[in-house]
Amino acid sequence: MKFSNRIVNMQASPIRKLVPYATKAKADGKKVYHLNIGQPDIKTPQSFFDAVKNFNEEVLEYSFSQGMPELIDAIREYYKNYDMDFDQDEILITNGGSEALMFAIIAIADAGDEILSPEPFYTNYNGFASAVDVNIIPITTKAENGFHLPSRNEIESVITNKTRGIVLSNPGNPTGVVYTREEIEMLASIAKQHDLFIIADEVYREFVYDGLEYTSFGNIKEIQDRVIIVDSVSKRYSACGARIGSIASKNKELMQQILKLCQGRLCVPTLEQIGSIELYKTPKSYFEEVNAEYKRRRDLVYKKLCEMEGVICKEPKGAFYVNVKLPVENAEDFVIWMLKDFDVDGETVMMAPSEGFYSTPGLGKDEVRIAYILNEDDLTKAMDILKKGLETYRNLNK
Amino acid sequence: MKFSNRIVNMQASPIRKLVPYATKAKADGKKVYHLNIGQPDIKTPQSFFDAVKNFNEEVLEYSFSQGMPELIDAIREYYKNYDMDFDQDEILITNGGSEALMFAIIAIADAGDEILSPEPFYTNYNGFASAVDVNIIPITTKAENGFHLPSRNEIESVITNKTRGIVLSNPGNPTGVVYTREEIEMLASIAKQHDLFIIADEVYREFVYDGLEYTSFGNIKEIQDRVIIVDSVSKRYSACGARIGSIASKNKELMQQILKLCQGRLCVPTLEQIGSIELYKTPKSYFEEVNAEYKRRRDLVYKKLCEMEGVICKEPKGAFYVNVKLPVENAEDFVIWMLKDFDVDGETVMMAPSEGFYSTPGLGKDEVRIAYILNEDDLTKAMDILKKGLETYRNLNK
Repeated sequence: MKFSNRIVNMQASPIRKLVPYATKAKADGKKVYHLNIGQPDIKTPQSFFDAVKNFNEEVLEYSFSQGMPELIDAIREYYKNYDMDFDQDEILITNGGSEALMFAIIAIADAGDEILSPEPFYTNYNGFASAVDVNIIPITTKAENGFHLPSRNEIESVITNKTRGIVLSNPGNPTGVVYTREEIEMLASIAKQHDLFIIADEVYREFVYDGLEYTSFGNIKEIQDRVIIVDSVSKRYSACGARIGSIASKNKELMQQILKLCQGRLCVPTLEQIGSIELYKTPKSYFEEVNAEYKRRRDLVYKKLCEMEGVICKEPKGAFYVNVKLPVENAEDFVIWMLKDFDVDGETVMMAPSEGFYSTPGLGKDEVRIAYILNEDDLTKAMDILKKGLETYRNLNK
Repeated sequence: MKFSNRIVNMQASPIRKLVPYATKAKADGKKVYHLNIGQPDIKTPQSFFDAVKNFNEEVLEYSFSQGMPELIDAIREYYKNYDMDFDQDEILITNGGSEALMFAIIAIADAGDEILSPEPFYTNYNGFASAVDVNIIPITTKAENGFHLPSRNEIESVITNKTRGIVLSNPGNPTGVVYTREEIEMLASIAKQHDLFIIADEVYREFVYDGLEYTSFGNIKEIQDRVIIVDSVSKRYSACGARIGSIASKNKELMQQILKLCQGRLCVPTLEQIGSIELYKTPKSYFEEVNAEYKRRRDLVYKKLCEMEGVICKEPKGAFYVNVKLPVENAEDFVIWMLKDFDVDGETVMMAPSEGFYSTPGLGKDEVRIAYILNEDDLTKAMDILKKGLETYRNLNK
């Protein structure tokens, strides 16, 4: 039986494809610290569960294709805190940020079209795009520069007549980069000049450290008709399992087009929307606490990484990831070895090999993404295990 | 700003696109009986809500990309009642039957490929397919024949070297047809001879009336490597708002490919899966009661339709839809008129115009789909309103 080329050519998720090794390690009695996936251990606000538990209709009905009006309104209020003003029909609720990305890609690009993305990028950009025959064209960025953007010339050099947009996460996954206002304005100007859309994945908007200024694409007024903002409750409110995301754009005509995709899949789960309405009402103090917690973790992980021989990374400034160059030839082999053949007192660490976050062949082969989503005690242990693992592995492969 | 051709060419849902007219009618104080959408009024089993309410983790975490093992096991048990035997890795949990269909289409067909479907078909087949550049090629069936399949020759005449599969719902949406064992075996034989997949949308499996035998594609042993079964809790357990569906196939290699798509969107909501585990344990008596209720409604609607002058339909045998030829030139105009300009004592009826369930231009223009998903009192009122509406409309347009 022949499968489609697009599914066969689609890469498996580097975040999840090694899970069978972790499952095996656990079955063998090992404890595995999961730094491979952005699953925070922060408590989901109780208001979510309370709202879900208070649901007392007898029939769990379809919701509106565009999402529940109350949830859309809650998100509109949330955006106002960031000086963004969206009408009711300028926001659509989606099955996580994932579906928002998928719909945005389908809406702006046909089969064979191209979308640029600073590389390393969130690996699923490539997955979603290749599933619908769109090519992600990399704008390569480097660990040595803290993954900041290259020059305007360099970016413009990869634009062709098939380029339809730019997709990027800010703060960056897997890099932790927070783009400067100048970088955002440069991309906006490029988008305007070359008639491109910008898919702005801003699901980590609140996770910015060291008092850095954060600039949303939603704040660059001149290009509001070409900005598509992707958001999600997953990281913001530690509610990954709710799968509630959204698309926001001031381009009403585009939103009417995307609504057709929303109607095709009928609606997003009713209960999860009811819970998420309350999430978006969470007071600002919640973010301050969470932010302080992640900053402590970032500091801890970065300090530990700097102490490891041969490891290269710059201090990440946002999100909760750091993309690290390891002193190994093949990071995926190393990650598998850590799960299969290594432990410290019965404990080991799982990370995501970074090669899948790049589309340029060969890049990222010696890198991993580490998500600092565990409490400080566990993170300390995990980092110590990684350090010992690296030492042992290098001695083995001398 | 240019959008993709595929999104621009994608049709709006005929089930949902006229909702603004209904919203307006309600704002004007009219009561609207919704026969346009398959939203049953049957109670969702309490076990679903109990399970959701008993969730007491502090963090709402991501679930497995393939779905929760307990839910997969519950579905495996369910299938055993129908003589279908699936391994753990032969079932994937999806965001409703909708995502299952989308993933199946992507996995078997590239851009430009073709998938056959008996027409009129579930309108979103066309929506999903065109969003990913796959063409749905119709096998036209007719109200006069109760929407049964044409001859093998007729079906084979539309097969080309681009044909990758056949997608169909059985029982049929919007037609209510239940295919005979001979029809299922004929399609299986065609699939085998022409190396096609069959995407079997069997979400209405339990909704078969008059003691008719039901044959699942899962029961045709010789072609199990080419059968993809799409299922959902939406109609089966009146839990449309849960958005829990599944794909099942004995083709393990195919399932490995589709798993990549599942990993791309990370997972399906955790709470809805926990509730759905209990749904799949619902005792068989539940279906018997629900089935008897729908049969009464079917009888009522069919009898009322037969009494209306100029209306053509055969008795539907399954699901909870009937696709009806009305004595009007343009059914969409008529549906809009019913919402805008007509009422009986402040009440009116909404139906889905059938043109969007056809891909052959011009077909279905004078047809509507009626979902008999209201209680008998409301259905009686709705049918009487439809009758009066038709009479008034015909007099107006004489």
